[in-house]
Amino acid sequence: MKVRVTITLKAGVLDPQGKAIEGALRGLGFAGIDGARQGKIVDLALAETDPDKARATVADMCEKLLANTVIENYDIAVLG
Amino acid sequence: MKVRVTITLKAGVLDPQGKAIEGALRGLGFAGIDGARQGKIVDLALAETDPDKARATVADMCEKLLANTVIENYDIAVLG
Repeated sequence: MKVRVTITLKAGVLDPQGKAIEGALRGLGFAGIDGARQGKIVDLALAETDPDKARATVADMCEKLLANTVIENYDIAVLG
Repeated sequence: MKVRVTITLKAGVLDPQGKAIEGALRGLGFAGIDGARQGKIVDLALAETDPDKARATVADMCEKLLANTVIENYDIAVLG
């Protein structure tokens, strides 16, 4: 079972990498950029075949390792 | 207009960060993990209001800066 975890910074958390991307794009001549925020994804292949169980397991993984829930949100998409 | 760019490593490209995540999850006692691959996202807020133009601009950004197309794939989702 394939699961995609998307981890993004919470609103209000400073994002220097996003700012760097925004600055670099402006430097390349791209105009009309109102903001850029970076995040990360983790694609997991699990032996689990039940979508609900897979989602619960991955939520546990996020809480324990993948996301820093003080400053990050995570979203779990079961891709089947 | 909000656009999400998802950048993933191409199949076959070694992913040490993904391997580290996999190993760390195993170390925490999670079983049944067949693989983990990491990737990144860039959320852009653009002044552009035409979805097709926004997509074309972001594809240009990916080719020039955001993705290393030798080893990475990118996917553009216009979120509206």
